[in-house]
Amino acid sequence: MENIWVEEVFKDVIGLRFRVKEILFQGQSPFQKVLVVDTYGHGKALLNDGMLMVTERDEFVYHDMIVHPAMMTHPNPKKILVIGGGDGGTVREVLKYKSVEKVVMVEIDEMVTQACKDHIPQTSSKLGDPKVELRFEDGVKYVADTKEKFDVVIVDSSDPIGPATPLFNKDFYQGVYNVLEDDGIVVSQCESPYYEIEMQKTIARIKSELFSIVRMANYTNLSYPGGMWSFSFASKKCDPLKDFNKERYKELDGDFEYYNDQIHFGAFQIPNFQLKQISEYLSPWPNQ
Amino acid sequence: MENIWVEEVFKDVIGLRFRVKEILFQGQSPFQKVLVVDTYGHGKALLNDGMLMVTERDEFVYHDMIVHPAMMTHPNPKKILVIGGGDGGTVREVLKYKSVEKVVMVEIDEMVTQACKDHIPQTSSKLGDPKVELRFEDGVKYVADTKEKFDVVIVDSSDPIGPATPLFNKDFYQGVYNVLEDDGIVVSQCESPYYEIEMQKTIARIKSELFSIVRMANYTNLSYPGGMWSFSFASKKCDPLKDFNKERYKELDGDFEYYNDQIHFGAFQIPNFQLKQISEYLSPWPNQ
Repeated sequence: MENIWVEEVFKDVIGLRFRVKEILFQGQSPFQKVLVVDTYGHGKALLNDGMLMVTERDEFVYHDMIVHPAMMTHPNPKKILVIGGGDGGTVREVLKYKSVEKVVMVEIDEMVTQACKDHIPQTSSKLGDPKVELRFEDGVKYVADTKEKFDVVIVDSSDPIGPATPLFNKDFYQGVYNVLEDDGIVVSQCESPYYEIEMQKTIARIKSELFSIVRMANYTNLSYPGGMWSFSFASKKCDPLKDFNKERYKELDGDFEYYNDQIHFGAFQIPNFQLKQISEYLSPWPNQ
Repeated sequence: MENIWVEEVFKDVIGLRFRVKEILFQGQSPFQKVLVVDTYGHGKALLNDGMLMVTERDEFVYHDMIVHPAMMTHPNPKKILVIGGGDGGTVREVLKYKSVEKVVMVEIDEMVTQACKDHIPQTSSKLGDPKVELRFEDGVKYVADTKEKFDVVIVDSSDPIGPATPLFNKDFYQGVYNVLEDDGIVVSQCESPYYEIEMQKTIARIKSELFSIVRMANYTNLSYPGGMWSFSFASKKCDPLKDFNKERYKELDGDFEYYNDQIHFGAFQIPNFQLKQISEYLSPWPNQ
């Protein structure tokens, strides 16, 4: 095996690296450096500005958990907005639901999506589906300007460094609130509770000022430093802990590598060190 | 900051490294190479034969999760056996329970414990407690020979490479079964579901041949490759999902950085890819 490695150094103190078989694509877009490599042991991997976004080996965890808890909670999800999500994995999971009529994906960086279409069909293969509208533009501007309404908004963003930074602000979430139907749900990539608890707090607070239901779910990833990362959940009405749709789950059971009806509830059960920091912004835990 | 790093390369394809401030101890015991370093961002860290065991930053996760689900399930845990656990963190957590009268810790490698006593008081500070009996000998031989009986056995071992290898065999678990009281519980460090699912299957199968209740719990760790790792749980009678002791929990609530009553249940809710491999050996999920 060659001794070539690709590494993400995080916070200057921890490095996570993967052994590389082949460099498949490198490019510089107006927004970031885009890199696709084939690895030993983890399949193909996408990195933006040196930050690992996706590996074929574990992308199922991220994409299951950003999509299914919300989609199994909403009463009838028809119109879905994905902000970011350039690799296509989120759209792939959303399209598993027969209620879905339209998916708008707003990705700021076309190079990311093109690189994934060319090299990572595992995530990108459904982006040509007729229900999908691809838009390469600024997600913040899109939600501020659009007249369309959505049932579920999924903020599948990279870290708050570089092009995704405005996606971690209140103005953006006010826009998301406005484009959501009255029973709408928003889910957002929400960083690491170990390394980014202040950011988690900020997002939970912003959502609690706008939405009546706010929760945090955790999942674990091979390819993000620290292992445990979070998705922030908010909605105008629906609660994943009370409104889990068992019938819909039964129809799709077997289609998931990570998510199941145990994990649906287990993911929202978060550890003390995280709970202490953000519980004031979360909805109360239902009686057991 | 100096550019010195200590790295665990796992399965030859993934590397996780930490920036080092200072080397505090290096030694070669009859069993392994023992290294203690001070890091930037993750406190002091112990590595045996280059495998990262503990960092001060995240040891609370591992030690909470190997101890508390079992201790909150057993009806009255008085006598506890810890196999391995040389850093002392497991003993520290066990001693939080006022029912505990005696803790026997059987660590094969005295150098590990001495290095932690000298350099990592955060984990080792309770090893001098009068309730604790420290034995530096082979845990497999100890359970085969002892006449003592225990309420809870905690197998706090390193990976099945080097001195811990015999702790992953059926003979050892037959010994554990024999030293457990009729309502006894055993918990074991059970590797990564991503990288070691065959080992998880083996342990679950071995336990299912001996014990009436078998479950698997997951937790996430900053310092182990892949993030998500597991503890295997087995008992003659008690089920963590049915016998959670709310009164005992209320007495200790506030003493835990990771564990809480949500996590107690959430940890046993495991993802599909893992469930598919091991569910035949696990006890059925109770009706929700």
